[in-house]
Amino acid sequence: MLSVSEAVAHLLEDSRILAATEQINLMESLGRVLADGMLAVIDVPPADNSAMDGYAIRIAECSDQKKPIPLSQRIAAGHPPQALQAGTAARIFTGAEIPPGADTVVMQEHCEESGGGVLIHQLPPPGANIRPRGQDVRSGQQMLPAGQRLRAQDVGLLASQGIGRVMVRKRLRVAVLSTGDELIEPGAASAPGKIYNSNRYTLHGLLRGWGCQVIDLGIAPDQVDAITTLMKRAAAEADVIVSSGGVSVGEEDHVKAVVESLGRIDLWRIAIRPGKPFAFGNVLGTPFLGLPGNPVSVFVTLLIIGRPYLFACQGIAHKEVIPVRQQALFGHHSSSREDYLRVRSTPGGLELYPSQSSGVLLSTSWGDGLVRQAVNEDIHPGDLVDFFPYSLLS
Amino acid sequence: MLSVSEAVAHLLEDSRILAATEQINLMESLGRVLADGMLAVIDVPPADNSAMDGYAIRIAECSDQKKPIPLSQRIAAGHPPQALQAGTAARIFTGAEIPPGADTVVMQEHCEESGGGVLIHQLPPPGANIRPRGQDVRSGQQMLPAGQRLRAQDVGLLASQGIGRVMVRKRLRVAVLSTGDELIEPGAASAPGKIYNSNRYTLHGLLRGWGCQVIDLGIAPDQVDAITTLMKRAAAEADVIVSSGGVSVGEEDHVKAVVESLGRIDLWRIAIRPGKPFAFGNVLGTPFLGLPGNPVSVFVTLLIIGRPYLFACQGIAHKEVIPVRQQALFGHHSSSREDYLRVRSTPGGLELYPSQSSGVLLSTSWGDGLVRQAVNEDIHPGDLVDFFPYSLLS
Repeated sequence: MLSVSEAVAHLLEDSRILAATEQINLMESLGRVLADGMLAVIDVPPADNSAMDGYAIRIAECSDQKKPIPLSQRIAAGHPPQALQAGTAARIFTGAEIPPGADTVVMQEHCEESGGGVLIHQLPPPGANIRPRGQDVRSGQQMLPAGQRLRAQDVGLLASQGIGRVMVRKRLRVAVLSTGDELIEPGAASAPGKIYNSNRYTLHGLLRGWGCQVIDLGIAPDQVDAITTLMKRAAAEADVIVSSGGVSVGEEDHVKAVVESLGRIDLWRIAIRPGKPFAFGNVLGTPFLGLPGNPVSVFVTLLIIGRPYLFACQGIAHKEVIPVRQQALFGHHSSSREDYLRVRSTPGGLELYPSQSSGVLLSTSWGDGLVRQAVNEDIHPGDLVDFFPYSLLS
Repeated sequence: MLSVSEAVAHLLEDSRILAATEQINLMESLGRVLADGMLAVIDVPPADNSAMDGYAIRIAECSDQKKPIPLSQRIAAGHPPQALQAGTAARIFTGAEIPPGADTVVMQEHCEESGGGVLIHQLPPPGANIRPRGQDVRSGQQMLPAGQRLRAQDVGLLASQGIGRVMVRKRLRVAVLSTGDELIEPGAASAPGKIYNSNRYTLHGLLRGWGCQVIDLGIAPDQVDAITTLMKRAAAEADVIVSSGGVSVGEEDHVKAVVESLGRIDLWRIAIRPGKPFAFGNVLGTPFLGLPGNPVSVFVTLLIIGRPYLFACQGIAHKEVIPVRQQALFGHHSSSREDYLRVRSTPGGLELYPSQSSGVLLSTSWGDGLVRQAVNEDIHPGDLVDFFPYSLLS
């Protein structure tokens, strides 16, 4: 059996960026993936400016603190200053540009205006209260690497550089297919032998959350012809195909045969629980991920094994998710497979959902993350364990 | 000064759910907030079903393992079974419904088909390999609480119950206003005295990530009339108004005066760094949050102080974010305010961005979270500190 990390490594080796690039407006770029590294194009701040509301002066002219200094201009933020006239001060506000010739700002709390001039009660050191040009960011400095998935603050950072359009990766098109004659859609009346299709919804949600464009192929009946038609369509329209169910070796599992006939499929035995079987291959050259059919297995395998691969296909720079070390309030026997336990974090530690069966989707909704239990390592109450909050995998 | 937790508590006390409800299709519900708690409406699985590919039998009839048992039916998943004829077995596949009269499934690896019958080499215990009806979820059981923000697995869970439409909160309409004559939009040519408006982009990104519908009011010039017009429009169209800049007491800060004239504004001195000043009030009855103008202050105050309030207004059940205890690789002097330090997590511990100035937005993009430094508690290298990965605040 492959270990989980071996399986992820194999997939990453096999991955390449499948998403082309496009230029979009910055306002639409949240969650998108930068195609290129971004360097700073301007200094921030762009000019020396005042850190305070106060008075801009040339400090060498202000030795006599008894005498008011005439005010020659008023500089608000956003309004360009004139050069400071010799022997005068400028009223200045936070963020406003320092006038040429001034070298210091006195905060208003240390001053008093009287008769068209300003009396300085307390002189600061030379250069005080000025934010120098380029203090925060210097033109040419590295800001964001290629492959960065843009967060709110990254978009803000690009905006602060005046960058109005960005080159990003197109959304990865992922075709999603569920298989099984027993599946019916939510909203339909229940019927004997039928169960509602949850995998489609879980998969859509995860993939959309990761920035993918989902191409919905619906439910394939357990018939070779129907699955073949859908797979051909998926290969033509999508960058990656994800299916749930139908890849074990049972007589009713036709996905394997269809993928084999149209490309290639390898069944991987991965030491993960919940989770096997897992299949990887291609349909007419389009990568194919075959997930198990059980709802929790689908969820866990896509999060743990599929996610790094799908990120790589999007051009997202690979970064291993570092688990949080947290205290378990439960015990759990280990097995020969890496276990992903559904847990809930509380201020006192992590609680285990009572049923860890791969059919109990409620176990994933009940809690807020997964504990990774190593092969053959029992967990005892009080142990520090590797916890992955779901939000770290988003 | 108010402590951060006092400020958050005051805001939460003042909050109420501002978003009305609407019924939507389950497929559109990712990230939306449940208006009502959801109980299970059906048992899962809906009927006893097979956990294996194998043979369904009545075990009391199978004491003689030498003799093949005739096969009377074949039951695939999704196809309703007939009652099991006495003295026969049924070929059955994973997920298929157990036929009435059968009480045990023998896995196929322990059987051998021969001449229309099946020879059982190894009998399991009675009841083996059957997943009983309601094992995973029982009808009437609590599934998801009101106020749950729906994640992929929650949507999957609702789907597994056949629920095709859900009652959710409408998206909270948040009007966003930036103030300052010095602001210009990204993409525009730079000009003396001007700086690019980043706050608009940071705020849009955070609010959209939290499921809000952003109403963009653009940049208000530093003029009372213009701000008044925009504020009236915001009060009419939005559930909450958020502005950045303009709420300190400077001569050029007109937002305060306008909000005061149209409703009420309280300037809060909150012991947070970066972050003060922070204003809370209302414009013609619509709640108003006045953030500082500095890019990092905007980011931190909205994450730490604004987020719990905006979640409450959306009807999201309040849940305190539990920080991760992580090792600091840096030292940092404390102050009389709660510090939110921009850090980067590495396998070895947390690194500090070299500049913690509130103007350096790059500090938020460089890293992946905030360390909360308590008032008057220095941090030394090697200390365990409270770390909030940004993803926990998403």
